[in-house]
Amino acid sequence: MRALVTGGAGFIGSHLVDELIESGYAVRIIDNLSSGSLDLIQHQLSNPKVEFIEGDLTSIEVVMKVMEDVECVFHLAANPDIRLGTQITDTDLKQGTIATYNILESMRVNEVKKIIFASSSVVYGEDAPMPTPENHGPCLPISLYGASKLASEGLITSWVGTFGFQAWIFRFANIIGERGTHGVIFDFIHKLKRDNTRLEVLGNGLQEKSYMEVKDCVKSIMHIFSTIDAPINLYNLGSHDTCSVRRIAEIVVEETGCSNASIEYTGGDRGWAGDIPRAMLSIEKMLSTGYDVNYNSETAVRHTVRCLIEEIGM
Amino acid sequence: MRALVTGGAGFIGSHLVDELIESGYAVRIIDNLSSGSLDLIQHQLSNPKVEFIEGDLTSIEVVMKVMEDVECVFHLAANPDIRLGTQITDTDLKQGTIATYNILESMRVNEVKKIIFASSSVVYGEDAPMPTPENHGPCLPISLYGASKLASEGLITSWVGTFGFQAWIFRFANIIGERGTHGVIFDFIHKLKRDNTRLEVLGNGLQEKSYMEVKDCVKSIMHIFSTIDAPINLYNLGSHDTCSVRRIAEIVVEETGCSNASIEYTGGDRGWAGDIPRAMLSIEKMLSTGYDVNYNSETAVRHTVRCLIEEIGM
Repeated sequence: MRALVTGGAGFIGSHLVDELIESGYAVRIIDNLSSGSLDLIQHQLSNPKVEFIEGDLTSIEVVMKVMEDVECVFHLAANPDIRLGTQITDTDLKQGTIATYNILESMRVNEVKKIIFASSSVVYGEDAPMPTPENHGPCLPISLYGASKLASEGLITSWVGTFGFQAWIFRFANIIGERGTHGVIFDFIHKLKRDNTRLEVLGNGLQEKSYMEVKDCVKSIMHIFSTIDAPINLYNLGSHDTCSVRRIAEIVVEETGCSNASIEYTGGDRGWAGDIPRAMLSIEKMLSTGYDVNYNSETAVRHTVRCLIEEIGM
Repeated sequence: MRALVTGGAGFIGSHLVDELIESGYAVRIIDNLSSGSLDLIQHQLSNPKVEFIEGDLTSIEVVMKVMEDVECVFHLAANPDIRLGTQITDTDLKQGTIATYNILESMRVNEVKKIIFASSSVVYGEDAPMPTPENHGPCLPISLYGASKLASEGLITSWVGTFGFQAWIFRFANIIGERGTHGVIFDFIHKLKRDNTRLEVLGNGLQEKSYMEVKDCVKSIMHIFSTIDAPINLYNLGSHDTCSVRRIAEIVVEETGCSNASIEYTGGDRGWAGDIPRAMLSIEKMLSTGYDVNYNSETAVRHTVRCLIEEIGM
């Protein structure tokens, strides 16, 4: 069994590679190393069951080639910087939607029919009830990143309906943990490393979201992929509760030992245009498959802060 | 007030142009004439308030130019042939999703902030309850055309959330009527014109969908656009009931006078992979705005058959 992992040198991708190897898969990784890094998979590169290809999914010729002798595709690659869409408007279209098209079309041509896709809670938009169930509609994403995830979901289900594919679509909460390469905790630690007297927080700090530890994320993916078998399998992945940005700032200040740092809020209810102030996914459907998380939001945050302090170094 | 109508030389677009002119708008039409035709807007071309530009929305340079001095954009252009996606997989991506991106980005640059979008009932997929309300989720389109409509919706709502746009999104039932250029009635009449002894019907004829007469469609769009004013306004547009393909075949045979033609079914529950066998939209939300349709599905079908027989000629 050979799995292709797109974005396999990225934060979540690298953990998924570990999990797939553990489960007996051979793994081919394709990553353009734009946000991923060989450092994150260094421990796997000498493994004969792991193959790494540096390549960009926006080229269908590249994608066609890596699809040979693959049984299933875990499609995780994307632009991870949601804020970027406010400045450059075609990144998510190209690295999200068009990349997914290239994957699906290459799968069709190479007769690879199983796709596992990393979607996101941001497809729901900002007016969804909380916790948000999978059957909430209409999905009205407010970020260009969210639009590309919704577009990719639709492409995938159309390949199921038209070409007999099978799909596992996972809408992720905020995934955090070891090897993190972006996001609020990563940013806070870097800010305090540059200046340990103050921590600037985008927005008023009352943004409140659900956080899932990355190993919980990849373990739940593998659990659902190996036990649930409908043509389209759509699951929220998250934890049981939320954590505020204010609380994250406090934990980072505490764990970095920068207890004299002043926490300063830029104000407003969100970090940037397209940021969703409050998000919590219903995980009832995930729980019904028999998987439960090991971390709640706050313990996942504290665990991540400790890991990233070690990785980044103060 | 100048409105840009993409696909304005197409079936629905040409009727919308008529309606906009009636409402006092100046209208700029952009159409690549791939399925649209100057014949459909011939009666408007001498009107000084109507401007026609032949151009393709897949070129952002072209779109940037037509956006000057426009107040709002009615974005109707798309590949109208849903079946095509089973053969050529990038048509809907390019002429649907990427065209919509080009429209939005050109609007942003030119500070045009109101978009009215022709989406489709096919975004819901095939497992939706009937009649399907706007808040049904998750949307799991099974055709590549449906995927491009869902992708376009997400792009539009993300431009609302990120750049302060305002959007009216309409999920159309099957729109039929005068000047039709494609679809089941159009196909049936052409088949009987070629051979008046038999009519081949794709599928078992039990496909059953809701049909809306095209003038009802454009009048409801204008009614909702001029009376409802939220940042995102999402409405199903359809009629109160459905009509089966079998019944449509009977009406076509009757109205064409080919009463000896044998109606032959290719079998199976759908016309092609990605066809949705049964579709009916809830129109409660549309009705709540004060608009009601003039035609039900069967009277719209019979009216359309008569119009198209005259246009096509037997």
